Amino acid sequence: MKFTIVTIGKIKENFILEGIQDYHKRISRYTQMDLFPVKEERMTNGVSGDLILQKEGKRILSKIPRDGLWVVLDRQGQELSSRNHFDFLNAQSELGVKKIYYLIGGPLGFSTEVLEKADKILSLSRMTFTHEMSALLLVEQLYRYLNFMAGEKYHK
Amino acid sequence: MKFTIVTIGKIKENFILEGIQDYHKRISRYTQMDLFPVKEERMTNGVSGDLILQKEGKRILSKIPRDGLWVVLDRQGQELSSRNHFDFLNAQSELGVKKIYYLIGGPLGFSTEVLEKADKILSLSRMTFTHEMSALLLVEQLYRYLNFMAGEKYHK
Repeated sequence: MKFTIVTIGKIKENFILEGIQDYHKRISRYTQMDLFPVKEERMTNGVSGDLILQKEGKRILSKIPRDGLWVVLDRQGQELSSRNHFDFLNAQSELGVKKIYYLIGGPLGFSTEVLEKADKILSLSRMTFTHEMSALLLVEQLYRYLNFMAGEKYHK
Repeated sequence: MKFTIVTIGKIKENFILEGIQDYHKRISRYTQMDLFPVKEERMTNGVSGDLILQKEGKRILSKIPRDGLWVVLDRQGQELSSRNHFDFLNAQSELGVKKIYYLIGGPLGFSTEVLEKADKILSLSRMTFTHEMSALLLVEQLYRYLNFMAGEKYHK
């Protein structure tokens, strides 16, 4: 199974970029993982959050192919333990899913249109993290999964 | 209110260190935050996890003063939203608490002795993160709180 991490805007924080690159390298031993930034809509005075989400949503729907499962990260989503997340990935793999897109929203989240197209909506935590931090956490979880499936020990 | 982040062993991952230093600098505009690493027990063959936890636990109980609240991060703990965590911190502040120790366990967690001494047990997520990542998430949450209380806008 291949993974694509869709973010709204490019990741800017240096330490997050380094961390993601680090896990990216480790993940590449097992499978392919790509980062796919979708251009963010600039927040300007007088423009409502809804309008921003709608514009970003349209961009997502037109740019992200439907050749794989769409897992959207959203605070309204289902919380899974790492082990339940492993089970979810294994179940998808057994169903023949070859590609998973993880979509990480910007500060405002996603438009209804995007949420409606999601195959699954997940939440990483009840706490609010920056979307960049969420991307970092997610790649760590994917590495954790791949390492576990390979029967290796990632004890940290 | 001052904060002390107690970790088992020093943080080693470079990108995590950079991230923590970054939030540390931002937090220092509002209050004092210290890192307090407690020496970890080496995991060697033939030594049980329980024994390791007991030894680390004794070290924690002897090194960490009781001049503040002990908040232990453990997967068995209570999950709070960021906003509920703000409310918790505000309530402590109103009760006159001047210092909070956040204790982040190693891969095995904490001994019963440490958990029993905790004033509060929190969980950051149902997912399992590395303890280093938990430290990074925590300092981000503290920065988020202090920034919010100062009436400033931290939109990310």
